[in-house]
Amino acid sequence: MGWLKATYIVECAAREIEQRAAQIASEQSVECPLEAIGEQRILDEIVARVAGIEDSGRGRYRVDVEISIQTIGTNPAQFVNMVFGNASLWGDVMFAGLEVPDSVLAIFPGPRHGIAGIRDLLGAPSRPLTNAAMKPQGLHVPELAALCRTFALAGVDIIKDDHGIDDQAYSPFAERVRACQAAIAEAHRASGKRALYAPNLIGTPSVLRERARIAREEGVRAVLVAPMLVGLPAFFELVEEFPDFVYLAHPSFGGARSIAPEFLFGRLLRLFGSDAIIFVNVGGRFGYTHDICAALAEGARRPWGAVKPALPVPAGGMKMERIEELLDFYGADTMLLIGGNLLVERERVLERTREFVERVMAWSPAR
Amino acid sequence: MGWLKATYIVECAAREIEQRAAQIASEQSVECPLEAIGEQRILDEIVARVAGIEDSGRGRYRVDVEISIQTIGTNPAQFVNMVFGNASLWGDVMFAGLEVPDSVLAIFPGPRHGIAGIRDLLGAPSRPLTNAAMKPQGLHVPELAALCRTFALAGVDIIKDDHGIDDQAYSPFAERVRACQAAIAEAHRASGKRALYAPNLIGTPSVLRERARIAREEGVRAVLVAPMLVGLPAFFELVEEFPDFVYLAHPSFGGARSIAPEFLFGRLLRLFGSDAIIFVNVGGRFGYTHDICAALAEGARRPWGAVKPALPVPAGGMKMERIEELLDFYGADTMLLIGGNLLVERERVLERTREFVERVMAWSPAR
Repeated sequence: MGWLKATYIVECAAREIEQRAAQIASEQSVECPLEAIGEQRILDEIVARVAGIEDSGRGRYRVDVEISIQTIGTNPAQFVNMVFGNASLWGDVMFAGLEVPDSVLAIFPGPRHGIAGIRDLLGAPSRPLTNAAMKPQGLHVPELAALCRTFALAGVDIIKDDHGIDDQAYSPFAERVRACQAAIAEAHRASGKRALYAPNLIGTPSVLRERARIAREEGVRAVLVAPMLVGLPAFFELVEEFPDFVYLAHPSFGGARSIAPEFLFGRLLRLFGSDAIIFVNVGGRFGYTHDICAALAEGARRPWGAVKPALPVPAGGMKMERIEELLDFYGADTMLLIGGNLLVERERVLERTREFVERVMAWSPAR
Repeated sequence: MGWLKATYIVECAAREIEQRAAQIASEQSVECPLEAIGEQRILDEIVARVAGIEDSGRGRYRVDVEISIQTIGTNPAQFVNMVFGNASLWGDVMFAGLEVPDSVLAIFPGPRHGIAGIRDLLGAPSRPLTNAAMKPQGLHVPELAALCRTFALAGVDIIKDDHGIDDQAYSPFAERVRACQAAIAEAHRASGKRALYAPNLIGTPSVLRERARIAREEGVRAVLVAPMLVGLPAFFELVEEFPDFVYLAHPSFGGARSIAPEFLFGRLLRLFGSDAIIFVNVGGRFGYTHDICAALAEGARRPWGAVKPALPVPAGGMKMERIEELLDFYGADTMLLIGGNLLVERERVLERTREFVERVMAWSPAR
């Protein structure tokens, strides 16, 4: 049946690392003392094993652990359980990577659309894409729809609900989706430019399903979901049941301190079916570095068996003045998300958004 | 509509704390610059507000933020989104507590059985309870059932699957549940002592539901679920759909570095319906302190509106020699979980488990 390889970064003293590595292998497989195991088959085929320890300097070690594929089944919840279940509870262990054979990769269809599918839907085969968020929550439906229309007329590619917008009394889901989808269509008739409206799906599994149905009936083609919030297995199943949507993964509740952010957002969320992955970019409101962001984007896009590339969406406090810098850094297979900064001059949202779109359109790698 | 109060621990320089607190309030509500908000109603009723900042010493501050109840809806996913969605992405912010008015508490029925319900099912009105785990994974069903029978004959109260046991080829779910439930029943006929078998439910929402149905049909009354792994909203809905089970919450994937563990395990998992909460105890394989464990247990049990108390289950490498110490520390409203340590003498599992049970039975607070 074979093994997959999981990599962890462990902070500890040199004299402890071998024991710590062995503890991780035990915790992520049989979770009991080896002397309690009476069967040779279990010792040979089930117990995870340390495959390598590498000193990364400054008291950090890179530990590779081989985990038996027999233990992970065919279920995304059990998969995560076996690669980073109990080990997540150690404050000094960070889950940092995975190497899986094709037999395991085949469990996970990954994004149903990916970068090429998003580009097809938008009729934008090669340029960088644009994304805007309708905010603040608290706005009523007509105001949200007006903002949606403004963004679409300005030429934004994907217009999403802010991630705090759910089904509150001030902007009920069904009414909002109908109005915003109509706004998109109206702008399309006026301008000839395609755009996607992505409502936020948030709730228990049955609520997700119910709202996905409403969105589908309204002709919606993209949705926003926070996978860590709704739960990775629920997210996985939603993608499976509604493969026609383009899924934008929101980082909310991603509390990525013990999963390397470049790995959680760049790889895991792609593996579970995110077509586009919103992450908090360097220099915004959060603390990721250039290196983390570069690795995250690279991980989302680089070839990975049959798993489609996912579109990186740097966000989290991005401002107009950074458009060219961001594109120079991420290249064209990127979607820029500018949130509140489009709205700071309240009377000039259309103009400001147009400028955003035009500058993205005008960018070229050869500048 | 009112406000709820969320508390965060922020590590930063003194000169930055006011700005950081304001950032949290923005991030957990409108997530945009205040100057982008045109409506007074939104500024008054929707924007979260800093209610207090307290210096906790050593560069840490306690920040209270009032969050509008209008924003949270009636949905556990959105609830978590609004109290610790984006803020989870800051490495120096820890979500540490909540004060919610009764109107919000009413959204969450909490444990359906709680401590009193578990005691009723077991016919054990006041003594400490016992819990054992069938391990290692890789054992075949007859071996698991034999271990289950052994534990039940030894008098253990709740016998659970190890959390790595799913539906693998070596121990398929339906076959295992039938065999282990039969083993429990057989031991009950032999000894007259009641016990509960708790199979592990793990998977996507539809897999959880399917397995819950199988377990219910087999007469199972308790299940093990890792809420952070299946997703809090999926867990919440499972409890809602299958209220007859006693739910043991497993900490897998709890990666609690940015949610205070005493809060995540002691409060949140209780609020979402865990009847018993397994956590990694001080002095075991994980790094929690005495203070964290004490606060966790206290949080699980103390009165909280109409939310039933949940049973603390200290675990994570507990050994026989610590039984009395653990009971002295946690008192009688506790379930001890000893895992691998029951199995270290492979020929004496029954005897060792009996000793475990007898020592728990013999303990009294007045020793």
